[in-house]
Amino acid sequence: MSVRTGESVFDWIDTRAEARAKAGLARRVRPRPADSTDLDLASNDYLGLARDKRVTGAAAAATLRWGAGSTGSRLVTGSTELHTELEYELANFCGAQSALVFSSGYLANLAALTALSGPGTAIVADQHIHASLIDGTKLSKADVVVAGHCDVPQVTHALATRGKRRALVVTDSVFSVDGDLAPLAELSAVCREHDAALIVDDAHGLGVVGDGGRGAVHAAGLAKAPDVVTTVTLSKSLGAQGGAVLGSGRVIRHLVDTARTFIFDTGLAPASVAASLAALRILREEPERPARALDVAQDLAFRLKEKGFLVSTPTAAVVSIQAPSPEAAFAWAEACRTQGVVVGCFRPPSVPDRISRLRLTARADLSDGEIERAVRVITETGASAGAVSRRP
Amino acid sequence: MSVRTGESVFDWIDTRAEARAKAGLARRVRPRPADSTDLDLASNDYLGLARDKRVTGAAAAATLRWGAGSTGSRLVTGSTELHTELEYELANFCGAQSALVFSSGYLANLAALTALSGPGTAIVADQHIHASLIDGTKLSKADVVVAGHCDVPQVTHALATRGKRRALVVTDSVFSVDGDLAPLAELSAVCREHDAALIVDDAHGLGVVGDGGRGAVHAAGLAKAPDVVTTVTLSKSLGAQGGAVLGSGRVIRHLVDTARTFIFDTGLAPASVAASLAALRILREEPERPARALDVAQDLAFRLKEKGFLVSTPTAAVVSIQAPSPEAAFAWAEACRTQGVVVGCFRPPSVPDRISRLRLTARADLSDGEIERAVRVITETGASAGAVSRRP
Repeated sequence: MSVRTGESVFDWIDTRAEARAKAGLARRVRPRPADSTDLDLASNDYLGLARDKRVTGAAAAATLRWGAGSTGSRLVTGSTELHTELEYELANFCGAQSALVFSSGYLANLAALTALSGPGTAIVADQHIHASLIDGTKLSKADVVVAGHCDVPQVTHALATRGKRRALVVTDSVFSVDGDLAPLAELSAVCREHDAALIVDDAHGLGVVGDGGRGAVHAAGLAKAPDVVTTVTLSKSLGAQGGAVLGSGRVIRHLVDTARTFIFDTGLAPASVAASLAALRILREEPERPARALDVAQDLAFRLKEKGFLVSTPTAAVVSIQAPSPEAAFAWAEACRTQGVVVGCFRPPSVPDRISRLRLTARADLSDGEIERAVRVITETGASAGAVSRRP
Repeated sequence: MSVRTGESVFDWIDTRAEARAKAGLARRVRPRPADSTDLDLASNDYLGLARDKRVTGAAAAATLRWGAGSTGSRLVTGSTELHTELEYELANFCGAQSALVFSSGYLANLAALTALSGPGTAIVADQHIHASLIDGTKLSKADVVVAGHCDVPQVTHALATRGKRRALVVTDSVFSVDGDLAPLAELSAVCREHDAALIVDDAHGLGVVGDGGRGAVHAAGLAKAPDVVTTVTLSKSLGAQGGAVLGSGRVIRHLVDTARTFIFDTGLAPASVAASLAALRILREEPERPARALDVAQDLAFRLKEKGFLVSTPTAAVVSIQAPSPEAAFAWAEACRTQGVVVGCFRPPSVPDRISRLRLTARADLSDGEIERAVRVITETGASAGAVSRRP
């Protein structure tokens, strides 16, 4: 009998890796330097606040004052007065009754879906919801129905024919791949008609959509609705890290008592809490920033459509351009990068419909010259990458 | 027909809250001030590094240099050269081939379990594993068998009789509630005999157990084993935030390509990355710190046993004392807090066996006087809280 070395246990991984490489789906971490001169059209730093000196200064000061970590779970030693301040200001800014901060938006979404559902619940989810919400439905033990993208009649039918008393309708507000907006007002009306709660992931809405960037839920007049729960991220327009759930006092208290990703996770680091607070205060002082991000997105989309590309119609700071294949999308993004323009490249399984895309972020602090340059580089490289075009 | 207001949708929450309040299981966030003079025996800051000026200084500097957030998911813009540096140094320190950093240990555990399993896999899990590992098994689509706590024969039987070709055995190294150690060498031998992989959560081992704090997996001689995958947290002994998976190059590349909590989560904030790096360097320079944490734990446990309490036998920096009920545990912890000693209070569902406990953290930087004071306060308050005692 041969000596066992354990070498073969993960041999199956190599087979999978080869299959992915053949399909053009291998991924690679590309660490960036601190002083990159590339034009960033890929990050989610929609308002350009991640490097704003008021934000980084507040984060640095908080680290020195409070420590590098929160030192424990939120219910043990991981809640500082800074966390409470952020929860108060975030709820206040978004018009919600209460807020609860998590170390990531992913964990906030898992918390909302698991703590607010259970075996006695039906979940009706838009087919394009974020991966973290999908994982939340998987952990929920609920009956899960996937409805068509933004398909209110399908949601209505699923609610009307459900076999469970309780129900949650789950959607993104701004969908991350194409930047399109969910019909929140209609969904809320349907939920209310059918005694269901509405859970909205406003990750790409906060800081961009609605009055002064108060988000899509606020814009739809639902921020204080007792049957609506909103999740947000602190790592996109606020330039920091973490996530939060916003809702009524009893919903938030219920999460404190029962949400596993709240109870069993270390609290958010003080630096990220302070950065989020500073970013929120900048949003209050400079309410024109969000509108600028939307303007940039619409400008980018308009110009790229003019060049013949299949471009999404932006309702927030995300613009996407369809590519003919994963390989073409990858080659296109690489060609842009070579010319100093960094764009997102979304391929399966990061897209809901198998269509690969370039994904552009319209930061509020992009100059007209930078927009000009981005359009030029994307257009030139798109032609040689065989990008979809409706023009000859 | 009455007008629907949505108010009743979450009425079920109030019923649950009342039941928890009656059972003594309501929880409360207690934000701490920056300048608390309380004696902290509750945090997971085992080496006292969260407020070490070298750690906080590095975090503050990184925020100013790299920004408050990583600005995107790790595969888009969320990987900085700092992340790569940490992954290199962490793997190197722990003796592993490669490492991958996540924004939390919770997400690292979900990644390891979901990416390395699937419908063709059997998972055999210790019954006391951390909540995040349990959620990982739930998301895994694998056949899951729960084995008795540290019960190697049960694990062996489950592996030998499994109905799937691939298998993972999942355990904590140091269990978070009682601080006891898993039989890693035996588990690894059984895994190898049965062509299974071993996944070890070394969250409470890193920085405390083994040569210079290299963790329990390193101590068991398994750091480079091709069939062992280790997860760690950056938020306990390293004083920062985040988590990581350590393993062979192909395992780590597989996570990059397929782990949803890696692909769809914003990268760890630069401040936390830099803090972890600084803490690792301190560990290299001051290899006596981990042993001191263990000494303090054993000292605390010895003295409290002498007072007649039911105390765990520490193998790392965690000491737990049994309480007769959730209410008694809560009252006991509150009485300690009133006297300026903050201890953890673990009640269902945060304990694996329904037994409520005080949980003490033996920080390496506790002075003899502080240990003295802690034992005095815990003993005095324990008597009046009706704590378990084997003495009259």
